[in-house]
Amino acid sequence: MHGGGKLATKLAEQLNIPQKIINGRRITDEETLKIVTMVYAGYINKNIVARLQAHGCNAIGLTGADGNAILAHTRISHSSGYDYGFAGDIDAINVPLIQGLLEQKFSLVIAPITHNKQGQLLNTNADTIAQEVAKALSASFHVQLIYLFEKNGVLGDINDDTSAIKQLNPTSYKVLKEKQIISSGMIPKIDNAFAALNGGVKKVVIGKAENLNDLIAGISGTTVMNG
Amino acid sequence: MHGGGKLATKLAEQLNIPQKIINGRRITDEETLKIVTMVYAGYINKNIVARLQAHGCNAIGLTGADGNAILAHTRISHSSGYDYGFAGDIDAINVPLIQGLLEQKFSLVIAPITHNKQGQLLNTNADTIAQEVAKALSASFHVQLIYLFEKNGVLGDINDDTSAIKQLNPTSYKVLKEKQIISSGMIPKIDNAFAALNGGVKKVVIGKAENLNDLIAGISGTTVMNG
Repeated sequence: MHGGGKLATKLAEQLNIPQKIINGRRITDEETLKIVTMVYAGYINKNIVARLQAHGCNAIGLTGADGNAILAHTRISHSSGYDYGFAGDIDAINVPLIQGLLEQKFSLVIAPITHNKQGQLLNTNADTIAQEVAKALSASFHVQLIYLFEKNGVLGDINDDTSAIKQLNPTSYKVLKEKQIISSGMIPKIDNAFAALNGGVKKVVIGKAENLNDLIAGISGTTVMNG
Repeated sequence: MHGGGKLATKLAEQLNIPQKIINGRRITDEETLKIVTMVYAGYINKNIVARLQAHGCNAIGLTGADGNAILAHTRISHSSGYDYGFAGDIDAINVPLIQGLLEQKFSLVIAPITHNKQGQLLNTNADTIAQEVAKALSASFHVQLIYLFEKNGVLGDINDDTSAIKQLNPTSYKVLKEKQIISSGMIPKIDNAFAALNGGVKKVVIGKAENLNDLIAGISGTTVMNG
């Protein structure tokens, strides 16, 4: 799973299409849906696939529409009055499709675009898709979910990238939220991590993209645990 | 296979990126490659896939990078001095991949973006990809290739859309070219059609997208034949 929000925002600026992001969610009007479809499913997805292929990894890129991989519905307007437009909330992950492709040794690269099976593409949060795919696969596989971003993990001091918290459980998460040590931007990611664990995922790690091997080995980043 | 040149040109205009098209081939600098990747592999490919899914057709979208479907190399600069930039000429079609996906009942929707297996995406003419894929599959399948565009076929009078030539063979093609009845824009398409027939494709039809059923039935468009 990959995102691409920063590049989408940049392209929207170049095209003079104003963007609104509320609680980390992009208000997706028709022009913005075009932009995220082009940037996520086109530019970013295909460049990742091409670079993986160069490393001998047999990657294949998917959106939720391809093979009906991820079914979603248009998000119902928030009671507070926000209309998120063409934003999709997930209904179903197509586990047989994903399992079949994995068994054929494809490495799947999924863009955060879903569809409603009625011809409409929908913009869907990448962290949420990662969580839902990880949960859906955990019935058949031993699943480890790794969230990669620009920081070393969940930081104890937001200004100190060496302050990553090694382990986080529901109790310590509650305390750190109350002390406002965990900032608003991290909360949806950590909530996704706990939701994944509650849905059968074995382990969730949050850390820096450049440290992927260390994150897999468990010697970098923040491990989120359910107890 | 689909194209998308008109939408790519429109986006390039909106972004103030000048486009040069020589002999129907787009000079693909780095910014133009971004545009065609976004438009072809993102916007157009995924909207086609979503609409096919809405009709119960289990479509999956691919570029040449996905599953290493189509390997290409950067076009060598033309002796006349044109540098086509990131334009790709095809080296190989991955028949086992395509055959495997077809056997799994996926309908493949292919965007005209290829790769060189060294991490570089390349812009490749859609009609040529269609020809190469059709030829490559004709060893294992009975292949019919249908070229869809905005006209009723190869026209005897370019100003009369009812003047489609029913059948075209190498002899009549030569005569019509000499009389300049067949215009320059049609020539690469017809050359592709004959190349496909010479490579084992059973039948090539050229006609209007809206008439697809009639084209399949052979009661509309121009049928290109090898004798």
